[in-house]
Amino acid sequence: MRYAVYLNIAYRPEIRDPEGDAIRRELLERRGVQADVRAGKCLALVLEAADEAEAREGAVKLAWELRLGNPNVHVVEVVRVAHA
Amino acid sequence: MRYAVYLNIAYRPEIRDPEGDAIRRELLERRGVQADVRAGKCLALVLEAADEAEAREGAVKLAWELRLGNPNVHVVEVVRVAHA
Repeated sequence: MRYAVYLNIAYRPEIRDPEGDAIRRELLERRGVQADVRAGKCLALVLEAADEAEAREGAVKLAWELRLGNPNVHVVEVVRVAHA
Repeated sequence: MRYAVYLNIAYRPEIRDPEGDAIRRELLERRGVQADVRAGKCLALVLEAADEAEAREGAVKLAWELRLGNPNVHVVEVVRVAHA
């Protein structure tokens, strides 16, 4: 089966996120909207896997193996998995 | 209610995505994995809304209003909505 896995590679919650902070300030100052904002990299991978769990784990493993995130500061989070 | 909305701001499908292409090649050459890859910006917004539909539409509208994407080349896609 082919699955689409959406990954978010973002700063760990305890690490400052200047980009998210800038967007948060803009939302407040320009739109009066109070929102928390965190910015990250979204990767949409379409890959072959036996089931959803394998797709999910495989995508996260590949992201770390390719060093798409730095384990010291980033998390790799599965945001969505769907049939592709 | 507070909702967490995950947006993906990515190139339209018909626009070349050099970052996604580079990751796709790496996956194939270094891991033998055939996958389609598209790279984008992930924004996780936590905001107040009456319901899930309002949270979803509000987040997309704000992203365009703040010009976080360029309508000529980007899509703004809701990847996930959850209670926060």
